[in-house]
Amino acid sequence: MLESLKKQVLDANLALPKYGLVTFTWGNVSGYDKDQGLVVIKPSGVAYDDLSIEDLVVIDLEGNVVEGKLKPSSDTLTHLVLYKNFPTIGGVVHTHSPWATSWAQAGKPIPALGTTQADYFYGTVPVTRRMTEEEINGAYELETGNVIVETFKDINPLELPSVLVHSHAPFNWGKDPNEAVHNAVVLEEVAKMALRTYQINPDAQPMDQVLLDKHYLRKHGANAYYGQK
Amino acid sequence: MLESLKKQVLDANLALPKYGLVTFTWGNVSGYDKDQGLVVIKPSGVAYDDLSIEDLVVIDLEGNVVEGKLKPSSDTLTHLVLYKNFPTIGGVVHTHSPWATSWAQAGKPIPALGTTQADYFYGTVPVTRRMTEEEINGAYELETGNVIVETFKDINPLELPSVLVHSHAPFNWGKDPNEAVHNAVVLEEVAKMALRTYQINPDAQPMDQVLLDKHYLRKHGANAYYGQK
Amino acid sequence: MLESLKKQVLDANLALPKYGLVTFTWGNVSGYDKDQGLVVIKPSGVAYDDLSIEDLVVIDLEGNVVEGKLKPSSDTLTHLVLYKNFPTIGGVVHTHSPWATSWAQAGKPIPALGTTQADYFYGTVPVTRRMTEEEINGAYELETGNVIVETFKDINPLELPSVLVHSHAPFNWGKDPNEAVHNAVVLEEVAKMALRTYQINPDAQPMDQVLLDKHYLRKHGANAYYGQK
Amino acid sequence: MLESLKKQVLDANLALPKYGLVTFTWGNVSGYDKDQGLVVIKPSGVAYDDLSIEDLVVIDLEGNVVEGKLKPSSDTLTHLVLYKNFPTIGGVVHTHSPWATSWAQAGKPIPALGTTQADYFYGTVPVTRRMTEEEINGAYELETGNVIVETFKDINPLELPSVLVHSHAPFNWGKDPNEAVHNAVVLEEVAKMALRTYQINPDAQPMDQVLLDKHYLRKHGANAYYGQK
Repeated sequence: MLESLKKQVLDANLALPKYGLVTFTWGNVSGYDKDQGLVVIKPSGVAYDDLSIEDLVVIDLEGNVVEGKLKPSSDTLTHLVLYKNFPTIGGVVHTHSPWATSWAQAGKPIPALGTTQADYFYGTVPVTRRMTEEEINGAYELETGNVIVETFKDINPLELPSVLVHSHAPFNWGKDPNEAVHNAVVLEEVAKMALRTYQINPDAQPMDQVLLDKHYLRKHGANAYYGQK
Repeated sequence: MLESLKKQVLDANLALPKYGLVTFTWGNVSGYDKDQGLVVIKPSGVAYDDLSIEDLVVIDLEGNVVEGKLKPSSDTLTHLVLYKNFPTIGGVVHTHSPWATSWAQAGKPIPALGTTQADYFYGTVPVTRRMTEEEINGAYELETGNVIVETFKDINPLELPSVLVHSHAPFNWGKDPNEAVHNAVVLEEVAKMALRTYQINPDAQPMDQVLLDKHYLRKHGANAYYGQK
Repeated sequence: MLESLKKQVLDANLALPKYGLVTFTWGNVSGYDKDQGLVVIKPSGVAYDDLSIEDLVVIDLEGNVVEGKLKPSSDTLTHLVLYKNFPTIGGVVHTHSPWATSWAQAGKPIPALGTTQADYFYGTVPVTRRMTEEEINGAYELETGNVIVETFKDINPLELPSVLVHSHAPFNWGKDPNEAVHNAVVLEEVAKMALRTYQINPDAQPMDQVLLDKHYLRKHGANAYYGQK
Repeated sequence: MLESLKKQVLDANLALPKYGLVTFTWGNVSGYDKDQGLVVIKPSGVAYDDLSIEDLVVIDLEGNVVEGKLKPSSDTLTHLVLYKNFPTIGGVVHTHSPWATSWAQAGKPIPALGTTQADYFYGTVPVTRRMTEEEINGAYELETGNVIVETFKDINPLELPSVLVHSHAPFNWGKDPNEAVHNAVVLEEVAKMALRTYQINPDAQPMDQVLLDKHYLRKHGANAYYGQK
């Protein structure tokens, strides 16, 4: 069942320690099969060194376990809210990668300061508002998804495939699990460079819109000309 | 004698260089067997590359060597004070891990700025007061333990398993040596992210108490639901 | 055809991930054969792990593909402008190496603060002006080359083999591809140390001109005495 | 000739890249045989990967080559001044290790902020004054040694085995080449932590003298009790 997607989700989870994005079990990747309406996700609290394809959990969009002996990630409901509300995405990644998490803790969005960000993110990486006491004490993980969706009410999630959850850490997504991890790596890199940019020049300004357009659109959309396509 | 504990203590000591927490011999781990009232600890000044199970030293809570040919860690008396005063702990780790040590040198506690800290520490990681001339020139290592215990007079040591000793470095603990090292890794990570958070936003505030409660308690205590338990 | 140069260009490209200068495919190296007027360059968007000598693309100075099945780097026209205008160079490297890119995003040149920089760069590493809307929306990659050349109108490019393109990232060059990569490594190192120098001492001043002369000239030019030559 | 010392000098040179202290050939180690009055030193500009025992150069204290086919390090005369003026030392290391070099570029000494420094350095790591135009344009490398010696006129070099040469980089020493490298590693670590300490707390003060005494003297001198001696 969903063997190809499971393999993608396993590979994407194992890529997190390879790229230095996770300490211990602080991260999880899922993938979504739109045709069947099913999600494959990492089990909760299992070490990456021990993770095998049999450990992955298959759930439906309501969070019912369809296959698997282990409990799914404690962040599962957040993933599901994203799949329901962002119909173009097919993979979600959550990590506590240290540079992006520092921005999330600071409660600050990451402006587009250069072409590295513009090649992947069509503008500022947003930060959610603080969650309310009711949200935190209620269905917390589901409400985490809701506050992300609220943050993207005027943003195309495939054009801006990452968010900083206030006082918490980033979530990232993409058309499939591999692209979601790719975006998580980029986010960490631009988060690092943005802080250093401001340390070099506290008055640094966001890049010109025309340069942002140029770089984003040379890699994305109908007129893209980067790569071998 | 204490073969299982020795293996745990050896593994925990060898985990320190693996996680990048020590330079040269700047760290030591011990484990405590409550039933026998005995502690297994790293010998003083032995390189991690050369460390074997035979090198470990068994002592009683007064510091008398019960087994072993080598001198125990120069920090042994600090470990013993912690075992005597924090009856719930079974492992102690001391390192000079660079991020946490920088906070110790700065004499500043690490506020809980995000969920990464809240998942392991139920609040601010405290810093001890400066030690007095009498303490330093007296039984220094024992007094180091005493000043830690004084810092925790209103704190549950298992809910806050790390401390920054002023002008010195961190000590960490846990229910066993492995958990103590785990906490030392987390401390280093949150120490790093806390400095960067303040660099991004000098006015960053500690996280909401309700979010701190939520994250700490979803991993600890009767209502925990993280992991496979 | 150009087998020796292809080998140099392949090795120089593979050196980028080895030295930690690139994430994913964010970099490219080319080499120039002056006698034949031909350039060998990395193909666009190909992962370093998969890169082989057959993937390299041979082009003339107008950008016509002379040999190769893949599309050349999207930055090819920038490389060509540099070869045309800096006749002493034989290799060009573009990366988004994080420290140098942070300076580029900050729009600040890197002053010579110590002998590490003076050993390779005869003064301040310059930053270009911002590109205009016309340049960005026109022949963008060619205009990127032009703005670099404009920046060097009073600078000898072999004495200062790197530039920071504003809001973008560095380009580096040298007498051959290997030297260009060597200079990219040095740039990253001095970019890192320059920020830290200012963090230690916000009033730090550029090094004395006489010390800059001494170090640059003991490694370069007729009176050099460093190394085994 | 001097086979044992050559082996020590080779091992100490190879330790520099292992500890992350050098980029390319930016460092050199020498060792001194007091009985014979001879120094073994790395050749100039030879890559560490290629370095073998046959490449090492034997010189007398006047810099005359006694054995070896290669030119000695361009910094040789600095080493010789140190051996002549600091009769207790037997090894010298020069690197451009990035954290210590940043302090040298900033022209700032590194105060003792915690016990990590106190375990190896009996106080502040000093920085030299700027060298004069006459010194730089004269016998530069010899004058570099002289300005170091001038800096230590009231400091015991074995109690403070490192110096920051202004606008340049550190030199370190010890009773033998291995100890000199060991001290270079410590210097890099304390240089890193000192900057971070001030970033956490700009008003951080040097550690108490009594704590400095305690830590330095528990590892050095007649009453030392650290390690297995």
